[in-house]
Amino acid sequence: MVASAFLPELWTEILIPVCAVVGIVFSLFQWFIVSQVRVSADLGASSSSGGANNGKNGYGDYLIEEEEGVNDQSVVAKCAEIQTAISEGATSFLFTEYRYVGVFMVIFAAIIFVFLGSVEGFSTENKPCTYDDTKTCKPALATAAFSTIAFILGAVTSVLSGFLGMKIATYANARTTLEARKGVGKAFIVAFRSGAVMGFLLAASGLLVLYITINVFKIYYGEDWEGLFEAITGYGLGGSSMALFGRVGGGIYTKAADVGADLVGKIERNIPEDDPRNPAVIADNVGDNVGDIAGMGSDLFGSYAEASCAALVVASISSFGINHDFTAMCYPLLISSMGILVCLITTLFATDFFEIKAVKEIEPALKNQLIISTVIMTVGIAIVSYVGLPSSFTIFNFGAQKVVKNWQLFLCVCVGLWAGLIIGFVTEYYTSNAYSPVQDVADSCRTGAATNVIFGLALGYKSVIIPIFAIAISIFVSFSFAAMYGVAVAALGMLSTIATGLAIDAYGPISDNAGGIAEMAGMSHRIRERTDALDAAGNTTAAIGKGFAIGSAALVSLALFGAFVSRAGVHTVDVLTPKVIIGLLVGAMLPYWFSAMTMKSVGSAALKMVEEVRRQFNTIPGLMEGTAKPDYATCVKISTDASIKEMIPPGCLVMLTPLIVGFFFGVETLSGVLAGSLVSGVQIAISASNTGGAWDNAKKYIEAGVSEHAKSLGPKGSEPHKAAVIGDTIGDPLKDTSGPSLNILIKLMAVESLVFAPFFATHGGILFKYL
Amino acid sequence: MVASAFLPELWTEILIPVCAVVGIVFSLFQWFIVSQVRVSADLGASSSSGGANNGKNGYGDYLIEEEEGVNDQSVVAKCAEIQTAISEGATSFLFTEYRYVGVFMVIFAAIIFVFLGSVEGFSTENKPCTYDDTKTCKPALATAAFSTIAFILGAVTSVLSGFLGMKIATYANARTTLEARKGVGKAFIVAFRSGAVMGFLLAASGLLVLYITINVFKIYYGEDWEGLFEAITGYGLGGSSMALFGRVGGGIYTKAADVGADLVGKIERNIPEDDPRNPAVIADNVGDNVGDIAGMGSDLFGSYAEASCAALVVASISSFGINHDFTAMCYPLLISSMGILVCLITTLFATDFFEIKAVKEIEPALKNQLIISTVIMTVGIAIVSYVGLPSSFTIFNFGAQKVVKNWQLFLCVCVGLWAGLIIGFVTEYYTSNAYSPVQDVADSCRTGAATNVIFGLALGYKSVIIPIFAIAISIFVSFSFAAMYGVAVAALGMLSTIATGLAIDAYGPISDNAGGIAEMAGMSHRIRERTDALDAAGNTTAAIGKGFAIGSAALVSLALFGAFVSRAGVHTVDVLTPKVIIGLLVGAMLPYWFSAMTMKSVGSAALKMVEEVRRQFNTIPGLMEGTAKPDYATCVKISTDASIKEMIPPGCLVMLTPLIVGFFFGVETLSGVLAGSLVSGVQIAISASNTGGAWDNAKKYIEAGVSEHAKSLGPKGSEPHKAAVIGDTIGDPLKDTSGPSLNILIKLMAVESLVFAPFFATHGGILFKYL
Repeated sequence: MVASAFLPELWTEILIPVCAVVGIVFSLFQWFIVSQVRVSADLGASSSSGGANNGKNGYGDYLIEEEEGVNDQSVVAKCAEIQTAISEGATSFLFTEYRYVGVFMVIFAAIIFVFLGSVEGFSTENKPCTYDDTKTCKPALATAAFSTIAFILGAVTSVLSGFLGMKIATYANARTTLEARKGVGKAFIVAFRSGAVMGFLLAASGLLVLYITINVFKIYYGEDWEGLFEAITGYGLGGSSMALFGRVGGGIYTKAADVGADLVGKIERNIPEDDPRNPAVIADNVGDNVGDIAGMGSDLFGSYAEASCAALVVASISSFGINHDFTAMCYPLLISSMGILVCLITTLFATDFFEIKAVKEIEPALKNQLIISTVIMTVGIAIVSYVGLPSSFTIFNFGAQKVVKNWQLFLCVCVGLWAGLIIGFVTEYYTSNAYSPVQDVADSCRTGAATNVIFGLALGYKSVIIPIFAIAISIFVSFSFAAMYGVAVAALGMLSTIATGLAIDAYGPISDNAGGIAEMAGMSHRIRERTDALDAAGNTTAAIGKGFAIGSAALVSLALFGAFVSRAGVHTVDVLTPKVIIGLLVGAMLPYWFSAMTMKSVGSAALKMVEEVRRQFNTIPGLMEGTAKPDYATCVKISTDASIKEMIPPGCLVMLTPLIVGFFFGVETLSGVLAGSLVSGVQIAISASNTGGAWDNAKKYIEAGVSEHAKSLGPKGSEPHKAAVIGDTIGDPLKDTSGPSLNILIKLMAVESLVFAPFFATHGGILFKYL
Repeated sequence: MVASAFLPELWTEILIPVCAVVGIVFSLFQWFIVSQVRVSADLGASSSSGGANNGKNGYGDYLIEEEEGVNDQSVVAKCAEIQTAISEGATSFLFTEYRYVGVFMVIFAAIIFVFLGSVEGFSTENKPCTYDDTKTCKPALATAAFSTIAFILGAVTSVLSGFLGMKIATYANARTTLEARKGVGKAFIVAFRSGAVMGFLLAASGLLVLYITINVFKIYYGEDWEGLFEAITGYGLGGSSMALFGRVGGGIYTKAADVGADLVGKIERNIPEDDPRNPAVIADNVGDNVGDIAGMGSDLFGSYAEASCAALVVASISSFGINHDFTAMCYPLLISSMGILVCLITTLFATDFFEIKAVKEIEPALKNQLIISTVIMTVGIAIVSYVGLPSSFTIFNFGAQKVVKNWQLFLCVCVGLWAGLIIGFVTEYYTSNAYSPVQDVADSCRTGAATNVIFGLALGYKSVIIPIFAIAISIFVSFSFAAMYGVAVAALGMLSTIATGLAIDAYGPISDNAGGIAEMAGMSHRIRERTDALDAAGNTTAAIGKGFAIGSAALVSLALFGAFVSRAGVHTVDVLTPKVIIGLLVGAMLPYWFSAMTMKSVGSAALKMVEEVRRQFNTIPGLMEGTAKPDYATCVKISTDASIKEMIPPGCLVMLTPLIVGFFFGVETLSGVLAGSLVSGVQIAISASNTGGAWDNAKKYIEAGVSEHAKSLGPKGSEPHKAAVIGDTIGDPLKDTSGPSLNILIKLMAVESLVFAPFFATHGGILFKYL
């Protein structure tokens, strides 16, 4: 007797694309609202076309709260000019990056095709299925071809996600600045809506492309779901490998510019952050968009694609796949569809149901987004689990079968969802200057930079404890209930509210840029204070976003690891064998190797930037006085060249390690490497992100000087503040380059191993075969 | 047909104690030579008793190379006074520490007895043996009692090792200073001989006590070798748990004093290091002796004891144990005995065969010690393996049997020995300012402290790569040849030249203290230059020593882990089970938790020290002018109190984790925790030590200003130098507190699990039993 899901297949086929389209439409609607804020450098055209709107900035009436500069068109022109410079810099960098990455993509696509095709010697004949030899399955060559196509689709979707995110962000930053003239609430809404554009566009298009790909591939594969979902894993690999280059390249870009700008501007020349006299200031703002926006977008898209692929591939060899229960098979996609609807409702809480009136309401509003989406999503998961799953089914568990109830799977998804929330709040606790950890770090600046660094590092190490327990409990619960399928859906649970997560995450760099534009356009102190308040909240949400990214990466890569092991035909990964233990040891070392590369890259690129900025200050007369303009373009070029050049070695390390280990040492050692890099990488990623975030906010705490304690450490330029700036600068590559790139390291190695699993199982381990 | 070892049992029984006694006699002889350098505050007594020696400082003739101050008795008096202050401070701290640790020891001894006794419900009746049920073995209660005795013996030996090392070091430091007046070669010999006293005393007494314990226990156990060597594992636990408190307490002490002294003295008041006006200067020098000497001594003694225990317990359930081949059983002890003889010859190369004449010969001389001892030891191992082992024997391999040839075991020991040398040299490459990595870090100081820290952290991460490969290869080779027994003897191979390793390691802090005494006694610039040269070489050898300690800790803890798994009756530790993977994840987190605790402790203690030092500078009139004496005792007290208080939480974390995990979650999860903490802890330990060492030597590189490049960064007080001092200060807790303590974390958790294995196997995992 085979129970099947309550929801008919036809409904599933309709509901998933409908939800995706709803997400995309919602995203475009938000974009439309943001576009109502007029930013036009061409004042004449604006007055002639805008007619009634002219001077009212897109609103029907002048604002009641009339403030300085609201109707000053020269400020608008200045903002538009800066926005254009940032947007052009970012676009040019991304195109350069994509050119190089495109070459890699073609080469790697060829490798996938050749390696996977070679598994059955490029035979075009069907073969008996692995898990049911009474049926015939498609040949390895077909899997090779379709995996390659899926890889390219994943890569293109990832690139598009990053690129569109960047476009929206550079479209919204000046608009946020301009709205800040009307009040902090208006500015917040613009920044938040723009973040939502990115969040929904990415979540919905990721789902839609994956869904269409599955349906198209199904035309060829027919009843061979095992082959179908094997080929689909290429989608995850494509998404994640682009994310790697996006994160690493963008991370090096943004931090080289940031560190370079700070070292000369803030520390040597004593001019404020984002001062237009600083030649690296445009590069710095470009960096926020290519690193924190495009990089983060690609990263979370990658996690999402991989989690879906991991769940699908495990399900395809379980009772869903064998019984061809399409609705149950699509459970991961149904969860994501539900997630889009839930996030849509959640967004309305920030944009329509409530209004931000004061600075102190910003952070709670962002945090409430997380809580609201998590609570509603819990109900959503319950509904999906009830209608989308049979009441009982069997899951493949490394050679054994395991019976799972639908409520157990509901718990698996929930545990991931709520673990994400816990990780988010712990991250907030350790990185927000509202709590004692960051205040202690700020306090340690009294005795100089050295104690600041010691306390900051200790804080990062300590902040690992609770997230690791949260991840461990999620793994234990989901693994115990539904083996690796449970872990995969737990990861999806954590990522189910990705649209909201990305919205509040993208909000940060947009606000950061908005502040930069206000400073550069010479807007008043009051406006800068408002954008600073937005930015401070953004710093914390960025840290929360990184927490989510890391937590989900840990679950995703474990799920992928499980799928890899299943596909490679390994039944146990025994630490008590030499092959596994050396893999574990070397795998645990890889995040260090990778971090060494990326941090050194940031350091070297920053040194070049420092020299250029110093050169400009020394050779351009009138620069310090503000009478001459710096040469922004050269700084943009330095960052671009450095990041393109420097992203190759760490990229190769991650992409080649699974291939080399699998080919020479075989699947057992590779399993060890994956497990080792997972358990070690998660820790470094969390501690690096939080240490960096804490230093950043400790500096902001001293600068803002809100409490008595903070005042005793300040003001700007005091000895403790200088020490805090040093900490902040050290934290930049930790929190924005090496830390977040580690997520991708652990996920990417796992998904790559999964895609190449049949190849390694057939041709791998040649070193041991001949020894 | 059972082959047995070539060496008759009687010879084994004679050779091991003879070698140990030879080591002790050699050590005392070196002490006698060092004592020939007269340090006497009481000039009258010295002239009346010394007669002919008066003014010649223990040598028959005045030196040809007559220099300033050689015959100035007031300087001698001053040195003696400082030496006494340091020695008294160190002794007082160690006695305070031992008082607290003594309480812990008694409690923990009771826990061992009760827990292990409960395995068979405190039954006093013999039972059938686990691996051969035709024979009867002693009851669990006996194992409990003897394990407790062994624990206490190990603890006492460890305490003695640390204490005697400290005594010798504080005996030798002023003597080194005084000899520096006669030339760098003379000073080198004194410092080196004193190091050798400690090295040989520790290696030989560790061997002798272990040997006697085995023979005494054998009287009771008779033919039940399984029980005998189970009980012996308590020796390793005792040694290592004392090492934990020694390292952590000593580490916090030394770095609180060092950081505190530097922050106010060097950075705020701009007075040189070791200036007698600095109130924390005596505490700083005391710290070198209690942290780097006593702590390191206990640590390496612990490694040595554990490696021996791991090898013995695995061997006891292999063919050696079952056939009662005592010589083969004692193979680990024979290796150590041979090591003492080899190190003895090696020492003569530094003290008698060659003479140091110039500063640049110091570092090669120390490095040659490592190379010479490794080369000779290779021959030594071959001899021991040939005479001490049957040509072929079987080893227990997690339920299976494995046939091993004697030449294979020879290779296992060798691979450990040579991996140690490689790790040592890689460490040297990354931490000596003779090579580009440290020079790059120094160069990055041009752009300030932030880039210095970024480059330093990246260097530490990078320095992990080769050592991990060396360890991985050692594990693979030794594991493949002889399972966990192979890994255990590989660890012993790495530790076989421990006497030489400790000699060059202890040399460092002695030289450091000698420099401090020269500064405090107001000796001339030339003398200070000589002690600085000795100290710079000592910094590198300290880093090499730490490399050895970490490498051997990795091998030892893997061997202990293997022994634990065998004793707990676990046959596979499968990563693909929820219990193991969560253990792995949480285990990998523990080193971060531990480091957070120890670094924060150093930070807090340093803050207290800074306040006290500032207070004294502000309130004692004439202190900066040198007319008033600072209150050294209060600073010593602050360091003592802080380190005693702060060593308890990290100590509890390490000691309680295996008990809690084993009792509540069972042996599978505990296996995961051990494997996770091993693979993650090794990386942090290596990177922390090397980052700290590199920063220290980058600072020294700028200060020494030997090359054009170095001169361009200096002199002392320049901006790059200030940045380098900040790096050095941050590195202090990394390289001397948290980094080296991690060795102990991974070893101690493993040995503790091993000792409690029967308890966990019987009563463990209660959480899963009831869920």
